[in-house]
Amino acid sequence: MRTTSVGVHKIATKGPGDVSGLMNLIGSGAIDPASILAILGKTEGNGGVNDFTREYAVAALCSALAPKLDLSAEAVEQRIAFVMSGGTEGVLSPHITVFTRQQVQQQPAGISGKRLSIGMAHTRDFLPEELGRSAQITETAKAVTAAMADAGIADPADVHFVQIKCPLLTSERVEAAAARGNKTATTSAYSSMAYSRGASALGVAVALGEIAADIGDQDVLRRYDLFSKVASTSSGIELMHNVVIVLGNSESSASAFEISHAVMSDAIDAAAVLAALGSVGLGARAQADRELVNIFAKAEASPDGTVRGFRHTMLEDTDISSTRHARAAVGGLIAGLAGTGAVYVSGGAEHQGPAGGGPVAVIARLSD
Amino acid sequence: MRTTSVGVHKIATKGPGDVSGLMNLIGSGAIDPASILAILGKTEGNGGVNDFTREYAVAALCSALAPKLDLSAEAVEQRIAFVMSGGTEGVLSPHITVFTRQQVQQQPAGISGKRLSIGMAHTRDFLPEELGRSAQITETAKAVTAAMADAGIADPADVHFVQIKCPLLTSERVEAAAARGNKTATTSAYSSMAYSRGASALGVAVALGEIAADIGDQDVLRRYDLFSKVASTSSGIELMHNVVIVLGNSESSASAFEISHAVMSDAIDAAAVLAALGSVGLGARAQADRELVNIFAKAEASPDGTVRGFRHTMLEDTDISSTRHARAAVGGLIAGLAGTGAVYVSGGAEHQGPAGGGPVAVIARLSD
Amino acid sequence: MRTTSVGVHKIATKGPGDVSGLMNLIGSGAIDPASILAILGKTEGNGGVNDFTREYAVAALCSALAPKLDLSAEAVEQRIAFVMSGGTEGVLSPHITVFTRQQVQQQPAGISGKRLSIGMAHTRDFLPEELGRSAQITETAKAVTAAMADAGIADPADVHFVQIKCPLLTSERVEAAAARGNKTATTSAYSSMAYSRGASALGVAVALGEIAADIGDQDVLRRYDLFSKVASTSSGIELMHNVVIVLGNSESSASAFEISHAVMSDAIDAAAVLAALGSVGLGARAQADRELVNIFAKAEASPDGTVRGFRHTMLEDTDISSTRHARAAVGGLIAGLAGTGAVYVSGGAEHQGPAGGGPVAVIARLSD
Amino acid sequence: MRTTSVGVHKIATKGPGDVSGLMNLIGSGAIDPASILAILGKTEGNGGVNDFTREYAVAALCSALAPKLDLSAEAVEQRIAFVMSGGTEGVLSPHITVFTRQQVQQQPAGISGKRLSIGMAHTRDFLPEELGRSAQITETAKAVTAAMADAGIADPADVHFVQIKCPLLTSERVEAAAARGNKTATTSAYSSMAYSRGASALGVAVALGEIAADIGDQDVLRRYDLFSKVASTSSGIELMHNVVIVLGNSESSASAFEISHAVMSDAIDAAAVLAALGSVGLGARAQADRELVNIFAKAEASPDGTVRGFRHTMLEDTDISSTRHARAAVGGLIAGLAGTGAVYVSGGAEHQGPAGGGPVAVIARLSD
Repeated sequence: MRTTSVGVHKIATKGPGDVSGLMNLIGSGAIDPASILAILGKTEGNGGVNDFTREYAVAALCSALAPKLDLSAEAVEQRIAFVMSGGTEGVLSPHITVFTRQQVQQQPAGISGKRLSIGMAHTRDFLPEELGRSAQITETAKAVTAAMADAGIADPADVHFVQIKCPLLTSERVEAAAARGNKTATTSAYSSMAYSRGASALGVAVALGEIAADIGDQDVLRRYDLFSKVASTSSGIELMHNVVIVLGNSESSASAFEISHAVMSDAIDAAAVLAALGSVGLGARAQADRELVNIFAKAEASPDGTVRGFRHTMLEDTDISSTRHARAAVGGLIAGLAGTGAVYVSGGAEHQGPAGGGPVAVIARLSD
Repeated sequence: MRTTSVGVHKIATKGPGDVSGLMNLIGSGAIDPASILAILGKTEGNGGVNDFTREYAVAALCSALAPKLDLSAEAVEQRIAFVMSGGTEGVLSPHITVFTRQQVQQQPAGISGKRLSIGMAHTRDFLPEELGRSAQITETAKAVTAAMADAGIADPADVHFVQIKCPLLTSERVEAAAARGNKTATTSAYSSMAYSRGASALGVAVALGEIAADIGDQDVLRRYDLFSKVASTSSGIELMHNVVIVLGNSESSASAFEISHAVMSDAIDAAAVLAALGSVGLGARAQADRELVNIFAKAEASPDGTVRGFRHTMLEDTDISSTRHARAAVGGLIAGLAGTGAVYVSGGAEHQGPAGGGPVAVIARLSD
Repeated sequence: MRTTSVGVHKIATKGPGDVSGLMNLIGSGAIDPASILAILGKTEGNGGVNDFTREYAVAALCSALAPKLDLSAEAVEQRIAFVMSGGTEGVLSPHITVFTRQQVQQQPAGISGKRLSIGMAHTRDFLPEELGRSAQITETAKAVTAAMADAGIADPADVHFVQIKCPLLTSERVEAAAARGNKTATTSAYSSMAYSRGASALGVAVALGEIAADIGDQDVLRRYDLFSKVASTSSGIELMHNVVIVLGNSESSASAFEISHAVMSDAIDAAAVLAALGSVGLGARAQADRELVNIFAKAEASPDGTVRGFRHTMLEDTDISSTRHARAAVGGLIAGLAGTGAVYVSGGAEHQGPAGGGPVAVIARLSD
Repeated sequence: MRTTSVGVHKIATKGPGDVSGLMNLIGSGAIDPASILAILGKTEGNGGVNDFTREYAVAALCSALAPKLDLSAEAVEQRIAFVMSGGTEGVLSPHITVFTRQQVQQQPAGISGKRLSIGMAHTRDFLPEELGRSAQITETAKAVTAAMADAGIADPADVHFVQIKCPLLTSERVEAAAARGNKTATTSAYSSMAYSRGASALGVAVALGEIAADIGDQDVLRRYDLFSKVASTSSGIELMHNVVIVLGNSESSASAFEISHAVMSDAIDAAAVLAALGSVGLGARAQADRELVNIFAKAEASPDGTVRGFRHTMLEDTDISSTRHARAAVGGLIAGLAGTGAVYVSGGAEHQGPAGGGPVAVIARLSD
């Protein structure tokens, strides 16, 4: 019994404040604003601490959607999960991917197999001193389980991408912890982004049984052999809890889309990208009835300073942050193999895939 | 009758001043210092005006080679062609490629077909007002013809990569021209690098018959439909003439190496990279007796602001120059397809391949 | 007869989207939203082409003010002059300065001398091919005269700061001109910002009699001996006309504020900053009843590459744009002499003060 | 009895590899190469991990001095203390300051008071796991005491600037420690620079009695109330020990120079800069027989994110490192007050002056 239908729309943007593409699709009836569950975007900031293109994009989308949903802009931000990943280095192209979910009115004919499904959940608010530590891991794992249920997915093998939005530390938050007599995992805002991303990814791995549950504070950003093959986590200043979006395939879905994934073992793992494409019927031996919608991947500079034995210089560059380097390079490879720069490649892949590598998921549209 | 033997050694470097790899190969006898004709390198600077890693690398190499050649450091710099390309963004890995040429003592048995050959020539010194204009085009074309002869190559189709080192303008050079009552093509040092690279590339195209010879000042940096498929040009402050290095295949060569090339039509042209690899027996259907030595490619942000219909943001980024973005992205793609980041990807591809694209040449070693 | 009262409020911001400070002042009655004439701000972007903090700040302010003014956000943007200058390098601190103007209800007692007055005007829309040329100079001069009248200022000596917001060229605008058979001053968006700023500044100089009116296209960005001592111009993509804000002192003003200015002859001209402070009773021998409100200054890297005989490296830096360098350095000096980093230091000073220098204006509050 | 004479020569450079100024002074006899004790320089790199202008400058100086001293380049590097501080942001101008020391042949007449004296010492090599910890503090303190003795200075009050060159961690060094079963203070190369600078500065403070000796690992980069008022420390990859250079005034010196210092309490402390200038008879009430030679200062972004109550954005900028911001701003202030950008302003002031501030020392030449 297929109960939900999930839609996916990739929309190019002319700038972080550009909402015209989405508004046009709403205007034409192609998207019912009430069905929008999540919007994942690539914005053209630096992807770092002072990347305001992310919040600007969210603000612009909320303002534009508010009258369509008859809500205040603030209420729109509560209702829809916005995940903006800053940084469109190299050939990467700014765009948003809009995920919609609706109840199926009528059982569709001719759909076989599992189809794209989406589920969401969130954790409680964290204390600053919990970020990057066990509490964040454990609570995230619970939320992943809840989001799987929301997506109608029982088998972890059917989960292909788990996008998480997680908090970071600011000076005020560090001080608030200190005022309580507690030390945070780090005092640097920039470093806290990595801690929060890392602990959140470990939470996914625990939930999906990819690693054992007995991990703790000391493993975060240290035990890089512990990782999830499907986690993609981004930290942002605007929240204190984790928002979890599970993307997978489910028999309860009547969607026209399918998702699958592979894991890049390093930043130049072309084979993994091709495998991910192939797993949904795309790539070299593409099926005629399949069309690429988007690719979701994480990139990072390998912490040991090398890629297949050759030194890289990303971690020593004081002019350009390593996350920008990594997105540019992995973005170049994926865009080359996918034939388009409008792909979602996000930086900071701590515990998301093996060290220096990362998950790569592909959504295809089936024209059946 | 095979008269010369060309060697190619790719050597990883630990920093712009690191000469240990080359010194070890000289020490072990693997390289005869007297046979070194040219050294092309990737150094880890920003590749821009204030990239001092290029001159530092050349200074370190000249100092180290001087006692081996019984020459002063200055004389070494005159004798060997050093071309350092700054910028190892993303997965690109700093390295040098050393080209040697020696007379064949004894006719080798069992070599068939054309093999890697290298030839060099240089133009006369230019006046500052000649840079980026017809004079530079015409003189470069002559030098390319001379370098082909030096390489024992008669057919332009056997030329696969033409590396040129060309001058740029400084305030003093602009003023010297003004004192003669002449205006230079531009007064900006940064812009003059593009003019000089562009005119030099057009000179290659004229010499190889890729374009007609009736081009002039007004075509440089304007008629981007005019280009060479094998030119790779870099401008530097240290010279006032063009140094031309022709790489191709010749029956006069007894080398163990072969070179070929393709042209990337845009920055995500994976097919062209695969074609270049395939043309020397590498890539997907690699021959067992073939081994990749290095790839030489040019990258640039497409001037129209898009790649296959999607907007890129490289030209609007005030934080990172577009040449860095382009090297990172194209480097990511080529490294992914080649399986190594130790490849020579250089920025600034004016009239070197089509707008937004560039030449990609591959050298393979044959184990026959 | 004092007819108007001008208010000035400097408000620190926590980010480009932070409007809480202004909203608090409106909530407490300290600012009547209907009296807001102009808002000048420093936002924490890079100040370059891809600085989206400027438009984000304007969008946030318009959204927040809309319900207070019973207007749409778009109408707010038409009504109030917003000038956001990106770049808070070094010790510079993000803030906005809100200028209000109201009719005086009752003649104040005890005010003597001229007081702060503000006037606004705008030019007609320009054609793209008029930007950076005589038409922009002439029309700007007319608008400056109109804004002086609006401010109740007759004597050019009473004008101490003229802030102008002017257009820039985009590819579409360049093409529109070409379609009419006309060439624009430049085809580069980045360069057009300088042309537009320069011509606008020359318009101020003409209006105030600082230079003769017989200047033309060929003088813009060339005759750097022609400049205004009070012009501060910023170009933005969102308009095709110039908005002119004149700040000076007038007998018609009943304001509690006074403004004066000096001209920095180079980027390290501490004496000029001290003179500007001294001219409104601040600085070393500060009067007890005077309080600093804000300083408005323009900064640039001297085009000849030196400051008082010593080489600077701002123009050769491919990692950081020279405007960022210049703001950081001049901001450090002014902040040190003023005792606060919350000052308005803006980059790009073409024809605004002498080459390498720029105007510096100070507003003081009198507690009489 | 005056036994030594110390000379100070400030020499502008045209690039990191430019040694012509020094060679000219040696050629003219103004500098005896055998008397050179230390060279402190500002080079135009980014001042970060991948700033190769520092080692390039040292390599160029060693190569040029080698024949003058009849030593190998390597031996020159051992003999002379080279401290290159990368980063000439804003108006800062690349230059070197050459310190010479010679035995006095003949007692000079007419010198009264203490004069500039210089002393040097170095620690043993450190293990990677000792960097940023007690061992580095203790050993540095010993070396400072030794360098004071070498300078003929007994009273800590006569010490006005202690320049230290200290090691940093690299991946290999971190791994070497790990192989011994030991953890380093940090695994990040960039962070290790701060740890090493901080511990070295605390060593100075201990040696001079500025703080108690009972400090330990846990105080480094945490107890910012512990600091030296005269320490200036720079970390570099090329050594594993600390080199200590003490500058002060001594009765044993027959030098024409005098040094003094003040402490900037924050990055905009103009009063401290003026006090430092005044303390050697320079500045507003300059003595006719005094001439500025150079200013040596440390700059940093205040760790609490504010300067005198106003937020700065240096620590959140992912595009430009905070050390570059701080040097630009403090450099602008000092250059403005000194009247020249050829001053030595170095970044990274952990435990060197109070948090957000730093020492500022001035050397004046007396024409007696």
